[in-house]
Amino acid sequence: MITVYSDEHKYHHGSGELFRGSVVPCVENPDRASEILSRIRTIGLGDVRPAHDFGLSPVYRVHTERFIAFLQSAFDQWKSISDNPDALPSAWTSHRPSAEEPQSINGWLGYYSFDAGTPITAGTWRAAKAAADTALTAQAIVREGAPAAFALTRPPGHHASSEQYGGYCFLNNAAIAAEAMLRDGADRVAIIDIDYHHGNGTQAIFYDRSDVLFVSIHADPAQEYPFYHGYAQETGNESGEGFNVNYPLPIGTGWERYREALDDGLRRISTYGPDALVVSLGVDTFDGDPLGKFRLTSDNFTEIGRRISELSTPTLFILEGGYDLESIGLNVTNVLCGFEE
Amino acid sequence: MITVYSDEHKYHHGSGELFRGSVVPCVENPDRASEILSRIRTIGLGDVRPAHDFGLSPVYRVHTERFIAFLQSAFDQWKSISDNPDALPSAWTSHRPSAEEPQSINGWLGYYSFDAGTPITAGTWRAAKAAADTALTAQAIVREGAPAAFALTRPPGHHASSEQYGGYCFLNNAAIAAEAMLRDGADRVAIIDIDYHHGNGTQAIFYDRSDVLFVSIHADPAQEYPFYHGYAQETGNESGEGFNVNYPLPIGTGWERYREALDDGLRRISTYGPDALVVSLGVDTFDGDPLGKFRLTSDNFTEIGRRISELSTPTLFILEGGYDLESIGLNVTNVLCGFEE
Repeated sequence: MITVYSDEHKYHHGSGELFRGSVVPCVENPDRASEILSRIRTIGLGDVRPAHDFGLSPVYRVHTERFIAFLQSAFDQWKSISDNPDALPSAWTSHRPSAEEPQSINGWLGYYSFDAGTPITAGTWRAAKAAADTALTAQAIVREGAPAAFALTRPPGHHASSEQYGGYCFLNNAAIAAEAMLRDGADRVAIIDIDYHHGNGTQAIFYDRSDVLFVSIHADPAQEYPFYHGYAQETGNESGEGFNVNYPLPIGTGWERYREALDDGLRRISTYGPDALVVSLGVDTFDGDPLGKFRLTSDNFTEIGRRISELSTPTLFILEGGYDLESIGLNVTNVLCGFEE
Repeated sequence: MITVYSDEHKYHHGSGELFRGSVVPCVENPDRASEILSRIRTIGLGDVRPAHDFGLSPVYRVHTERFIAFLQSAFDQWKSISDNPDALPSAWTSHRPSAEEPQSINGWLGYYSFDAGTPITAGTWRAAKAAADTALTAQAIVREGAPAAFALTRPPGHHASSEQYGGYCFLNNAAIAAEAMLRDGADRVAIIDIDYHHGNGTQAIFYDRSDVLFVSIHADPAQEYPFYHGYAQETGNESGEGFNVNYPLPIGTGWERYREALDDGLRRISTYGPDALVVSLGVDTFDGDPLGKFRLTSDNFTEIGRRISELSTPTLFILEGGYDLESIGLNVTNVLCGFEE
């Protein structure tokens, strides 16, 4: 399987996130991508190709212009009020989008975000744009006929909505790639999100639409981040009704229960009959991940890849979360190798 | 003038707030109240009386039961996940109240708050309840015939709405006192908020109603906290239309411009003809306040008190912000003495 990778991700390296009342070192860091890349090379998964620059047009199909302008300029404004290398929001509104868009950086940060764990640093925009390009480059490889490709994206994307960042995510790489698939001729695209955390951004982006089916298997938001979305009763809106499928699972979920949700989700996708599939690939469902409380083993990831391959649909894997540096390379490549078996 | 004061405020003493990307020592701390109390005694302003316990009924007229249950139990839940003495939210939703109420403490904190600068500590509920009782005790003194009284409340209240805390505020002492005035027979109550920061909580509580006129003079929210409310075009809703009056003023505002807004606001109140007046008394408009960028002098505060007294309405002063410990006692008592001149 071809991997697309850009070194530019290293420009996003936050120093701190607010966690349980303290600012602690960022758990989403460049070593994650390095570990996966190293494993890909060690096992000889396939070519590793650079990302091309696709400009901003495909990004604007998912995100608003004012949100992109914010991401591009937020850190410069932050520098005028703080020497801190990380811009974090400290106040927010529960009345978006009806609330006024503020003009000051602290108001701006809270307006466009939904957590205080996602620092904007000097290089964040550059890295986020490169991640979107990485996803788009891999999408082009699938479009040109490859059965699958892997976008080794960092920062991740599935929590970002059209106008809000958070959960370590700025641009929604999976949504941008899905839109590119539609533009390239697909009538229906399915996204399956297997990150431990609900893909609230992806859900929000496609919630009113039937041309993208979103299926997410994740920890119950009543207990786990992102807390406010990801419930089973969230099934879509208007013409999107029935095209959003959430499988919230309890803390402690192991393979058996997970497999049931996965198989059910894959059946839903099979019935939908998509022309292409995007996999939001998080491996923080691993037993031992510092941010996850599921109990999947490394072998389970191979099995996940195998089951996804049974859809026999052109498939684009896009990296989301996974924070255990010792296992992340193994678990990600197990999914990819399982798919290719 | 009689002051009502309770030592219980000392139970709320947060250690840190998120400010410009770092957790820094809380600027809202018990020394604020001590300084004011000391000044009141030094100048012999009048009796200092203890607060009575009014139970929860008057609190429930402003805040929802589930919000009070949250404030009462949040810290106990926090203890189960963290040794940090301050509970701070780190994620939030822009979809209240339609979002699901989460069941985990981190989700809960974000659901009921709008900033990460307002720690909930072991003693926060106790102090917040005592502050409401302090306001209600002072309200009873005015009801019984005193021309005015001063509630030396801490934590402050004007940012708290029926279901959200933030801006160092948990229970809206001014709103609770205004409701008590209505219950005691007032047909119309006016609230004038002269804190540097917009009283977004008080505005939200009375936004649809005509029996409480809310007038606020504050820094432009486009530039200053609370960022998302406090604009001039926010004039009330439904039967409250026309009964919400905001005077956002630019950074650097001095006495002349401030006085114009004050006089205009007092004219609006005079026309309204309230049976009683609540003053949300912040002195962070002082030139030198660490959180404010207006340029009022200590003499200006005397003049503010004098002008408010010209309404010849029973008046309840309730403490809100003001963070310069050297001047806070002088500036607060200047308002009160100006009123009594």
